Amino acid sequence: MQSDSILVRESRSEAAGTAGVIAALAARFGDRMTTAAAVREAHGRGEGLRDLFAPSAVVWPGSSAEVGEILALCNAALVPVIPFGTGTSLEGQLQALNGGISVDLSRMDRVIEVNAGDMDCRVEAGVTREALNHAIRDAGLFFPLDPGANASLGGMASTRASGTNAVRYGTMREVTLGLTVVTPQGRVIRTGGRARKSAAGYDLTRLYIGSEGTLGIITELQLRLFGIPETISAASVQFASLGAAVEAVMAVMQMGISVARIELLDAVQMRACIAWSKLSGYAEAPTLFIEFHGSPAAVAEQIEQVRGVTDAFGGSAFAFAHATEDRNRMWRARHDAYHAARGLAPGKDSFTTDACVPISRLAECIAESHAEAESLGLTAPIVGHVGDGNFHMLVLFDPADADERRRADRLATSVSERAIRMGGTCTGEHGIGVHKLEAMVLEHGAGAVAVMQAVKAALDPNGIMNPGKTVPSTVFPL
Amino acid sequence: MQSDSILVRESRSEAAGTAGVIAALAARFGDRMTTAAAVREAHGRGEGLRDLFAPSAVVWPGSSAEVGEILALCNAALVPVIPFGTGTSLEGQLQALNGGISVDLSRMDRVIEVNAGDMDCRVEAGVTREALNHAIRDAGLFFPLDPGANASLGGMASTRASGTNAVRYGTMREVTLGLTVVTPQGRVIRTGGRARKSAAGYDLTRLYIGSEGTLGIITELQLRLFGIPETISAASVQFASLGAAVEAVMAVMQMGISVARIELLDAVQMRACIAWSKLSGYAEAPTLFIEFHGSPAAVAEQIEQVRGVTDAFGGSAFAFAHATEDRNRMWRARHDAYHAARGLAPGKDSFTTDACVPISRLAECIAESHAEAESLGLTAPIVGHVGDGNFHMLVLFDPADADERRRADRLATSVSERAIRMGGTCTGEHGIGVHKLEAMVLEHGAGAVAVMQAVKAALDPNGIMNPGKTVPSTVFPL
Repeated sequence: MQSDSILVRESRSEAAGTAGVIAALAARFGDRMTTAAAVREAHGRGEGLRDLFAPSAVVWPGSSAEVGEILALCNAALVPVIPFGTGTSLEGQLQALNGGISVDLSRMDRVIEVNAGDMDCRVEAGVTREALNHAIRDAGLFFPLDPGANASLGGMASTRASGTNAVRYGTMREVTLGLTVVTPQGRVIRTGGRARKSAAGYDLTRLYIGSEGTLGIITELQLRLFGIPETISAASVQFASLGAAVEAVMAVMQMGISVARIELLDAVQMRACIAWSKLSGYAEAPTLFIEFHGSPAAVAEQIEQVRGVTDAFGGSAFAFAHATEDRNRMWRARHDAYHAARGLAPGKDSFTTDACVPISRLAECIAESHAEAESLGLTAPIVGHVGDGNFHMLVLFDPADADERRRADRLATSVSERAIRMGGTCTGEHGIGVHKLEAMVLEHGAGAVAVMQAVKAALDPNGIMNPGKTVPSTVFPL
Repeated sequence: MQSDSILVRESRSEAAGTAGVIAALAARFGDRMTTAAAVREAHGRGEGLRDLFAPSAVVWPGSSAEVGEILALCNAALVPVIPFGTGTSLEGQLQALNGGISVDLSRMDRVIEVNAGDMDCRVEAGVTREALNHAIRDAGLFFPLDPGANASLGGMASTRASGTNAVRYGTMREVTLGLTVVTPQGRVIRTGGRARKSAAGYDLTRLYIGSEGTLGIITELQLRLFGIPETISAASVQFASLGAAVEAVMAVMQMGISVARIELLDAVQMRACIAWSKLSGYAEAPTLFIEFHGSPAAVAEQIEQVRGVTDAFGGSAFAFAHATEDRNRMWRARHDAYHAARGLAPGKDSFTTDACVPISRLAECIAESHAEAESLGLTAPIVGHVGDGNFHMLVLFDPADADERRRADRLATSVSERAIRMGGTCTGEHGIGVHKLEAMVLEHGAGAVAVMQAVKAALDPNGIMNPGKTVPSTVFPL
């Protein structure tokens, strides 16, 4: 926990109207508003890089209407607003670069409706994915998206999150039917609906998904749900080389074999997981964790198909995790990969790359990135949602070693540029935040960035919504 | 073919700069530009209601850069631009309400690249879905979206089209990875990429999809492709009542059974199809046409599951169309349903409703709409992509019978309102155009419409792009 003086030092400036807004919020929200240093600090950064920019105050609204009141107040006073879910974003989305009000949605945690017959639900933005799954399990339903962290669904929509199951079930872009959004002007609007498809006007749902709180605050979501599969089977398979593992994944995807998850862990990551999660029976070698969903016959067919492919690439015999307990142990190790990898070098800091490329380029992209990390002398274990062409390197560096930090930054920039050069993206699922802003023009071109800037200026003319994120500040003409 | 005098009468007005733009286009594009009345008329309406608003001229660009030249010219002169694909839109999207330039993309018909390993391709906007399928068949790939008409892919993206296969493969929203768009200012931009997912900034791809040419012109598309299924099997099953047929579909969807198409035709539509397409072996009764895609084992399993459901709802024995020829005959009849239905009342005019509702409300929505048509004394056969909750009524009316036209309009309005009331949308796949504008505020609320208007004003400040479409003209404040 840092001291107040550090908090103040790390905020660049504070809007003139902030004091007035804080006074008004205190009068309106009572003890649901605070300026306590410890709370502000806990709201001033996410995970990943730990640079702190604390907000001036934190407020906990209980409804969309209350969010509307807060935004109208801030908009009139030109005070920045930073939406907050569970604080697990990775790209600096939560940094209050110029102070402002952190709007914490964690008390908006109602599951509003579950429509089992339509396999959809409506939730408030503060509901976490685990809380939702708990609420719908008895109806035989589940919400598949799993980014690792027990993130809020509003935060997952805001960053266009996905995770291990996206290869089969899609990302937040695909599973969200509609939203309630509060505009910077304080107005509560609804987008989308409950129909599975619609051609009625601009796709505002998709516009707000991935906008990282820069256009408004998502306060409710209508989400697709899925029937819990009749059969779930999981397996792991290990390979002699990283290339063989990735090429096996490429072949599985190119053959159109249905898998629910297909996750890569490289040898360094496996070493970390074996130590951290007490995994037994695994070598420190590149490994795929795979899960199959479907009817018993469909799952049996998928397993045979995948086994045929992995055999062809020299994979070890499948180790099956049929029992729920074995499966859970395997996936828990996968989920704890971040902590396991950090355990490789206690005291070091870290960040995570997020390249996503067309599947045909995946082996090349991973091989080059892996070789570059080695040549830079960096420890950077690889995990990946490789069925989507998405992989992460957890780049470890000593914050006191300026040269190592520079090499880490060089690797991160290089991985983003490589992914873009291969027709992919600098971020498959973590978002732009502040850390990837410099890649935006390279990835999209100045023309597309100009269109994003025009949309931002039109919908948030005072620029109060999560300023300094997502869209570069250098203005390009339309 | 109508005379020039009618053309002039039906355009409301013409921008002052039009003559200058036409002269400039003639100088630049030569015989790739025309003001011939017959051509203008052919570009002044789509299918569906035949009200004609002819453009002032038609131009055929050959590249994105040429589209950019045309738009820059029109933007400077404040002359409207109406993008044109194959002319098969249904909601008046092509009407040149105030004259202007029709930009016909049919000569931009190159398949630019096919990436078999990634199952994607890049095409110019004028490529039709049939031409694309012809080009990729030898690679073992297909593009599943099938709206009936052999529409251009640019037009399909612009209207967020879908069709019979959407229940399995999604709509243009899901299968489009990226776009090239020419902005109203004449700038060529690229959106999205080739990665399967991305969290990099605002989702401009989805913003342009469904925007009906009101924000810019789509000139290229990066599209997902799919492997031709190992096994394709089709079947039809008939029911004693419309309700039983729809409830069977609801049960299939709620059980999560995988079908590639599941299409409803009501008794009137079947009567029309039997006559028009010389279908033998069918009763004039509510019918489902179903198609299954997958491995032999998966298809066999799907068929057994669906047969179990349809048996439970009193469906006739499955009539299988195993042979490609039988399958093609069945789907050709489905595709010709529009012409078949119009054949029920030669000389009558028609339009098509497009309600899409949550699947749990589908039986109720269809039953009420069917009963209303009967009580209004209208012939309005029903076809539907019922797996998505989407159905169409082809409403027939005598254009010379003002009362019948009024009743037809009343039915259309009522079907839209009913779908919205049930949590659905007035348009599942045909778009807003001019015909559904009045439903926009009812469906989205004034707040969301205000956001759409702000986006439109920001990206097309001169209002040249397909004016009078998609977004209501009554301005709502943000």
